Order: sequence, then structure tokens, then C-alpha cells
Amino acid sequence: MAVNLHAPRPGDLKPVRGLTIGVAEAGIRKANRKDLTVMLLEPGASVGAVFTRNRFCAAPVQVCRDHVGSGDIRAIVINTGNANAGTGEDGLVRARATCIAMARHLDIAPQQVLPFSTGVIMEPLPLDRIEAGLPAALADAKADNWLRAAEGIMTTDTVAKAFSTTAQVGGHEVTVTGISKGAGMIRPNMATMLGFLATDACVDPSVMQGLAFALAERSFNRVTVDGDTSTNDSFVVIATNKAGHAPVTALDSPDGRALFEAMQRVARQLAHAIVRDGEGATKFIEVRVEGGRDAAECRQVAYAIAHSPLVKTAFFASDPNLGRILAAVGYAGIEDLDQSRIDLWLDDVHVAVRGGRNSSYREEDGQRVMKQGEIVVRVGLGRGTATDTVWTCDFSHDYVSINADYRS
Amino acid sequence: MAVNLHAPRPGDLKPVRGLTIGVAEAGIRKANRKDLTVMLLEPGASVGAVFTRNRFCAAPVQVCRDHVGSGDIRAIVINTGNANAGTGEDGLVRARATCIAMARHLDIAPQQVLPFSTGVIMEPLPLDRIEAGLPAALADAKADNWLRAAEGIMTTDTVAKAFSTTAQVGGHEVTVTGISKGAGMIRPNMATMLGFLATDACVDPSVMQGLAFALAERSFNRVTVDGDTSTNDSFVVIATNKAGHAPVTALDSPDGRALFEAMQRVARQLAHAIVRDGEGATKFIEVRVEGGRDAAECRQVAYAIAHSPLVKTAFFASDPNLGRILAAVGYAGIEDLDQSRIDLWLDDVHVAVRGGRNSSYREEDGQRVMKQGEIVVRVGLGRGTATDTVWTCDFSHDYVSINADYRS
Repeated sequence: MAVNLHAPRPGDLKPVRGLTIGVAEAGIRKANRKDLTVMLLEPGASVGAVFTRNRFCAAPVQVCRDHVGSGDIRAIVINTGNANAGTGEDGLVRARATCIAMARHLDIAPQQVLPFSTGVIMEPLPLDRIEAGLPAALADAKADNWLRAAEGIMTTDTVAKAFSTTAQVGGHEVTVTGISKGAGMIRPNMATMLGFLATDACVDPSVMQGLAFALAERSFNRVTVDGDTSTNDSFVVIATNKAGHAPVTALDSPDGRALFEAMQRVARQLAHAIVRDGEGATKFIEVRVEGGRDAAECRQVAYAIAHSPLVKTAFFASDPNLGRILAAVGYAGIEDLDQSRIDLWLDDVHVAVRGGRNSSYREEDGQRVMKQGEIVVRVGLGRGTATDTVWTCDFSHDYVSINADYRS
Repeated sequence: MAVNLHAPRPGDLKPVRGLTIGVAEAGIRKANRKDLTVMLLEPGASVGAVFTRNRFCAAPVQVCRDHVGSGDIRAIVINTGNANAGTGEDGLVRARATCIAMARHLDIAPQQVLPFSTGVIMEPLPLDRIEAGLPAALADAKADNWLRAAEGIMTTDTVAKAFSTTAQVGGHEVTVTGISKGAGMIRPNMATMLGFLATDACVDPSVMQGLAFALAERSFNRVTVDGDTSTNDSFVVIATNKAGHAPVTALDSPDGRALFEAMQRVARQLAHAIVRDGEGATKFIEVRVEGGRDAAECRQVAYAIAHSPLVKTAFFASDPNLGRILAAVGYAGIEDLDQSRIDLWLDDVHVAVRGGRNSSYREEDGQRVMKQGEIVVRVGLGRGTATDTVWTCDFSHDYVSINADYRS
């Protein structure tokens, strides 16, 4: 039961000029499932991407890293059902073979294809099924296929995740549309967070990598369900350069800011959607840490809170067991933290003052906030002016059920 | 249901000369509960202690840190039902007042008393009840009270934790006896891991702090239930110096090694008992990481595995979902880790070779090990010769139930 998250309706999602999408049922792991998605970019698109920091990264991630640097990306192939991770040298061969097969259809170079896989780990990628499924996916390709794409990359997601917006850039209206998938950082066996965000705005290729990184840092890199970083996490940003305005050459220009703001809005919606559909989630929680010396230490504290099983089970129980939050602040790893400067709020309720219980705090006020479906936890460190924010969900019986179900 | 853990029987626990223990029902939070324990040391005992690294440490921890340095400790007071944590300046006053009350009974200085509290966080310590309970605890004091002490410090532990052994030191038989409590790093509201380990061996006071640290590093600092570090964790090592041999002045002397070995054995049993009685635990898991450049990176990888909710739920489900373990190795934070050198074993079953699935690995072999109550996970990093080991338990529905139960 996703928290305040609903599948897009027809018409919610705007096509992005210069980009078409096709989806097919290739029978990669299960029959009658959309499990193969292709995206086709017209020549001249700019692409940036960020990938998992997991050292045990999947074969397609390694191939993507190579290809994205070579520029002039023309196609994306995404399969579900198999992550092609923990597959050694053979996995790399199969990821490259996927690119070769796709390139042959489009008469482009294999380096112009980015492959993505999500699904079970440590099993060989069924390359034959992917190759056999490509013609149907290509035949399905059209601009108005974003919802099908959002469905095509789902694994155990319960809701398709896709959002659109528009912005004024260089005097032109540009479109931003994206899709994402993922419900735990790793599903029982269906791995991975994936995000694809496209705009028809014109963006200089030199800006794309910084754009992808900055967007990820404000969205996908600030959400967590269980703290487990997948082997396959990938976030790709595409500018098709079709909007007809002068290219954005810097993110801090007025056009750059307008575009970034619109893209950030969609990236956040996509990232939040992953948390809202988190495994067993019943609540959506924003953890905002203020008053740090730098953003990094705010983030460190925010993640300590967001990852604490004790904090997360307390949210599930609607129990204002606030000592658990303070304890997480304390063990976050800031060596010279002074507990006598810590403040804590649940939404507008000021719970702790200077490291102790606020004398005016009443348990029923904490209880009221804890019962909500959306909660803001705010911590003041009293050490500086930096802030950072992380989004997470609670930790329920269903999380254990989902992850303890045997794979077969 | 603790994993292969049973309460000590009468006669299992050997008294330690020079140390008596008394337990009382002081009604600190609930009626008819042993909740106040005192330990009395004859003059001349040596004491070392290590405490939580949580910056949000409890008032009694702060007081203990002050007192243990001043030497000549004569008494220990432990209450359950209230952690005196998150209580600000008032909490410090109450922790010190506990020492003053105890010191008055024994005609010693307050600095000769170490106070320990475990229980609910962010509520004022009921000092009046502790003061009122001290006479009964003191009247109960005798040498053969270790089992009562183990029961007296229990909060939501399901089994009393106490072990004894003997060793030959300086030609004399010496006794080592200890108790511990804790079942999550923080209980729903009953916080804290506590450990007390005593010997009648003669140990130079200058050795005690190093002894306590080295023992903790091989026991309590290598166990984890949920990764949440309590505000009150404390481990105290006492040498009553009654055995009549020449004092141990160095841990690397023959006598020092003999004593350390015996004390380590008991400290490990006490620490393992906390995991075996972990919240909702159904399995006891040893995570051994080998082939690291240094022990620190082995530990880092071991904790990443031991803390992963996905790994822990897979153990609960007896599911050999080994990609989850490899993924945890990958995100443990070793920047230059080479996945193509990673090996993985479950007990004697060689699961992954050089980062990929072992071709001779059969799922039924993994399944057989995963069904056991005690499992060794062994990871080879292929980077060096260092090793480290961490002990943990699985993650079950009961963990969520225990921690989501509302406190009242």
C-alpha cells in the first residue's frame, strides 16, 4: 500500500520531442510481463548519468560507465527479471552483447547503447530472450509511451512511477518527463532503483554530467528505504535538444536555473515515489537536519535517523518514542557533537530542547504527529548554519514478510 | 526464544572473593521486580571500564567516566526501569545523588561509586525510590549472588546471562565471573547493553583500562542486533586482587595471557548471549571477513553484512539469497575494492568465487546451511591477510512486533 501515491492517468505524462519508447514482453523470467523497454534518441541528444557507488556493481553499470563517456548515445535497453549482477566476466560479455544486438537493429555503434538490468542477482542474463524481444519492443516505439515505460521497468513496485512538468527556458516551453522504479534499495531478488529523466530542452553536452549529479544529490541520493545500496542503481538524464532555444551552457544561468528547478521537481517526485512505494511502507517521513557545520554532517545525522530500525519501527507503531531519535543523532558519528545543543521537532511540535525533554512537550502532541501518514522530523544541531534533508519510510511487518518470502 | 541460550543453574556461577552483590525490588518503574542491584568491592580492587561512543550518552555514563578515572572504586549501583538518558543537567544531578546516597551507607566518597541505569529514555530518574531501595539491596549483599544479579539487571531480556570460568595465574587458581544484559542495542524503551566481569586475580591498576578495552574489542564491541548504539552501554572489568599471586603488570606476560584468555572466554559468552537473546532472534550468525588489508576494513565489511536488513531477513527466511551478502560487501565503503577477488562461503559451502557464482555451488547446499540455528558467513576480500569477526542475529517479524509495541 503505497503512501499517497497513485499511478499517472492518461494525459498526465507529456511526450518529449526527439525520444520514443517501446515496450515488449520478452519472457525474461516470467511470462506475460512487460519486461523489456527501449528508448530511442534522435541524433544530437545530450546524456548524463550517475550510477551506484556499490563496488559490487552489476555488469550493465560497468558497460554504461564506459559508454556514457563516449557521448552520442542513441538508445537505451532496460530489462527486468535479471540484474546481471554478481555474474563476473560472463556478465560483462552478455551486457555488451545486448548493446551489439540493439546497435545492429539501429545501424549504430554498440557504444551508443546504454544497457540497464534489474532483477535477480547471480544468475546469467538470458541474452537469447532479450535479443528475441527487441524487434517487438522496437515496433512498439512511439513518443506517447511513458506510462507503458513506467510499467515496463517495474519489478515488485506496486505503483507505476512517472511525472511530467513544463518550464520556460530561453523563451520556449520545454517539457520534462521521467520514470523511476524501486521499492527497496534491493528487493528480495528484484534489485535496484532506476530513474530516467528526459527533457526536450537544449543543453550543452558539457553540462549534462554535472546536471545529472546535482539532480541525483537533491533527489535519488537523498532517499532510503532500508539503507541497502543496490548493485544496479542508475539515474540517467537526457536532453533531446529539440526545443529550439540557445543551449543551456551553465546551471547557474537564468535558463539553467529554470530548467534545473523543473527537472529537480520531477526528479524529487520520482525519488519520493520510490519511498512512498517502499517495501511495507505505511508512512512517508522527511528527516531535516539543521544547524550543522556543513551539509555532510547534517546528512550523516539524517541517515542515522532514517536507517535506524528502532526509529522506523516506532514510526510504524505511531509511537512518539523520541529517545530513539536522539540516540540515533548521538551515534551518527559526529565526534565532537554537544548533546546539550540538540533540539528536536516532530512537525511543529518542539519535543526536545538543548538535549533534554521540552518541559512544555506533551506526549499527546507527539502522538498526534506520529499518527499522520506524512511526518517531518527536524533536528537542530546548534553548531552552524548548514542543512540537509533525507526522505524515508517506516519499517513494518510487511517489510519482513516481503523480504523473508522465499524467492521461488 | 533465545538461540541456544539457557539460564545458569545453581552452582554454575563461582563467587569472586572480595566482591558481594545485593539485589532489591525498589519499584522504580514497575512493582515486584528486581530492579536495583549493588556490587560492593573490598578496598584495593582495580577497575577498568569502557562506555558507549554515543555522543548522546546518558547521565550515569558521564558520571562513571569521571569516577572511574579517580581510582579506588568501592561500589556499583545499577537500576533498571529508567535510563536517565536525554535528561539534561537534571539527569546529571540525579546520577550524582545516587552516588552520594550509596556513599553515605558505606562511609566512602561519592567518587568511589559507579552508577548505571537502563530503561526508559527522557524521563526523570526516580531518585527517591532508588534511595529508599538501597538499604534492602545492601542487606541482601553476599558473595554467592551472581545469578540474582544477572536477573536484577534484566529488562526485556528473556534469559539471565551469567558465566564463570577459572584459570591458573601465578600458580594460583583464579575465578572469572560475569553478567550481562541487553537484547537489542536499544529496547523499545528499556535501553542498553550492560556487562560486568570480575576476577579475584591480582592485576595492577595501570593494566585495567587496557584490559577492559581489549576485552570489549573482542566481545561486546563485535556484536550487533540492530546497529543501534545505546546511550547507556557500559562494560566494567573488576579485579579484586584477592588471589594472592604477584599482580599481573602486562597483558602480554604469561600470566597476563592466561588471565586474558579466561576473561575473554567469559566476555565472549556474555556478548554472544546478548545476540542469542536478540530481539526476535531465531539464528546466531558469525560474520568472518578475511583477506583484508587491515582489521578495520574487515570489520567495516562484516558490519555492513551484519546490519543489512535484507541479509538479516534472508537469514530469518532460511533463504540462500547470496546476492544480498555480495551487495553488502560492495557498499561497505571500501573505495578500491575489486569485486573480481571476492569469495563467499556459508559454513563450508563455497558459494561465490572471484565475484561470481561458484560453478559447483548448488542451491540445496546453501539452503541446508541457511536452515541451521548457527551459521558462519565467511567472506574473502583477496587484498591482504587481516581478518575480523562480528556476531549478529537474524531479523524476524518478532523484531518488528517487539519494537512496535507501544511503551505503555
